[in-house]
Amino acid sequence: MSTPLDVVGVGNALVDVLSLESEDFLAAHGLVRGSMTLIDAERAHAIYAAMGPAVEVSGGSAANTLAGLASLGGAAGFVGRVHDDELGQVFAHDIRAAGVEFSGVPATTGQPTGRCLIVVTPDGERTMNTLLGAAAELDGDDVDPSFVARAQVTYLEGYLFDQEAAGEAFQKAAAAAHDAGRLVALTLSDSFCVERYLEPFRRLVASEIDVLFGNADELRLLYETDSVEDAVASAERDCDVVAVTRGAQGALISARGRRAVVPAEPVDHVVDTTGAGDLFAAGFLFGLTRGYEIERCGRLGALCSAEVISHVGARPETSLAAVVADHLP
Amino acid sequence: MSTPLDVVGVGNALVDVLSLESEDFLAAHGLVRGSMTLIDAERAHAIYAAMGPAVEVSGGSAANTLAGLASLGGAAGFVGRVHDDELGQVFAHDIRAAGVEFSGVPATTGQPTGRCLIVVTPDGERTMNTLLGAAAELDGDDVDPSFVARAQVTYLEGYLFDQEAAGEAFQKAAAAAHDAGRLVALTLSDSFCVERYLEPFRRLVASEIDVLFGNADELRLLYETDSVEDAVASAERDCDVVAVTRGAQGALISARGRRAVVPAEPVDHVVDTTGAGDLFAAGFLFGLTRGYEIERCGRLGALCSAEVISHVGARPETSLAAVVADHLP
Repeated sequence: MSTPLDVVGVGNALVDVLSLESEDFLAAHGLVRGSMTLIDAERAHAIYAAMGPAVEVSGGSAANTLAGLASLGGAAGFVGRVHDDELGQVFAHDIRAAGVEFSGVPATTGQPTGRCLIVVTPDGERTMNTLLGAAAELDGDDVDPSFVARAQVTYLEGYLFDQEAAGEAFQKAAAAAHDAGRLVALTLSDSFCVERYLEPFRRLVASEIDVLFGNADELRLLYETDSVEDAVASAERDCDVVAVTRGAQGALISARGRRAVVPAEPVDHVVDTTGAGDLFAAGFLFGLTRGYEIERCGRLGALCSAEVISHVGARPETSLAAVVADHLP
Repeated sequence: MSTPLDVVGVGNALVDVLSLESEDFLAAHGLVRGSMTLIDAERAHAIYAAMGPAVEVSGGSAANTLAGLASLGGAAGFVGRVHDDELGQVFAHDIRAAGVEFSGVPATTGQPTGRCLIVVTPDGERTMNTLLGAAAELDGDDVDPSFVARAQVTYLEGYLFDQEAAGEAFQKAAAAAHDAGRLVALTLSDSFCVERYLEPFRRLVASEIDVLFGNADELRLLYETDSVEDAVASAERDCDVVAVTRGAQGALISARGRRAVVPAEPVDHVVDTTGAGDLFAAGFLFGLTRGYEIERCGRLGALCSAEVISHVGARPETSLAAVVADHLP
């Protein structure tokens, strides 16, 4: 069990519950379009009761990324906490079935497995309401330094900042990775999340992060500037590699001072943007761990992102290795 | 709560767990292509462990039909048994969110909510492995005669024959319907099921069934003949209305001696045939309860069936009322 891994992710283990709703649904239930909001059990009950017939698919931001990396042919691992219940079994099954080594042992005490109630509006935008459950109980004890040390890159999910104990898990994972001479990557995850935890994010990025993922809004918030250019310049001082996703405008990549702009991959019909950023990171990290040029890393990210937004759910439905073989031989 | 209903279904309350697998998967795991097999928990564990990443969507044959009927604008009710667990909550949420009145109270004792492990092969064919769980405990006590009496048609799912106590539920529901001057419909569900329970099926069809649904194989097995024509002629003696589905060849309908052939609705790409027969019944029953001509009933069935086989999962993803308005105004 000590075979090398390309990437190990540390993130929220969640099952997504997705339904398609009209635009009116957001206003009627006080939901902020495109955001991720943490909710309690009572609010989850109320939102779920209002949602139409739903589909359950394993999710979790970093977990989606690692499932994507495995689908590309990469060696992937994941650290996250589920409860020993039906949704926990679903999560553990799906991530293992995707080819990801899952280090978690389902907890028999504490809260039920976390879920994310996702409202998808007709334009494909997703609005997420997360009941963290067991995922909120992730702490340093869940991180096995020898597991992390096996991976070229340890990938941290910014959403975890919403949990107190997770800071400890982050620090432990980052320290284990750096002690082993490995890279540490972070995705900022959500602009509201960056706003809520600005100082800890800034400290973490400046001190521990080698590879930074975020969209333009998140980067501007992190560096408290209106200028994307200034934000990227600041990020370049903190991190070796910066990848800024900009939706249909494509991605801006910077690696050790060299920059590239990568166009978004055209998609006939955007069904559900859930997982778009997660799968961009999957493609990008796959390329990075193979030593590809940043342009190719970015194009791999764009391809993977295009696959996942063309259907409901945040995990790939087709082999991403086959998609790459077809489009980027 | 005593508003009239168009159709009440009595069936297995199941959550479907679907994954896309290669043809080889069937042989490797001893699965009979296109069939429904009842499995125990141990076998379910083994099949699930072998399946790739899956999607969970509410299912159950009659439950799918009633969800379809509601999507068409019909007034639908459902009788089935779930446990008070996460999958039971998923089932109850989804059927209510589909607009179906669900009479069930989740059981707090007995087995967990039932699930159907569905392997979908590249041609869209589905092979089903059902762990009935709580659904196997449905009995006469679950049937409220006053609920059944509210519906023009009581629709029974043949799969229920795989459970001993369900016979009692069938008899009670059929008696309540007939006492109220209502119709009783049955779907034969599965040729293996017909073979296993030939005599009880024959008795039920001859004595209680007004509207019979089945495919050509099921009808031939029921009447022990190689000739579809002979089987239909026998069914016509037993039932007022007979609807025989024949896949891409379309449906043969017979009502009080008058026959019609209805072509299948063309589908660009068959993704997953799960629910094809269930949704045919939905469209057909919707038409029947509105007093439409049998040709139109059949065409409604074909349209609903076409919607459900064009995506993964056995419940409609779009408003069937809108599909009908577009295609069969």
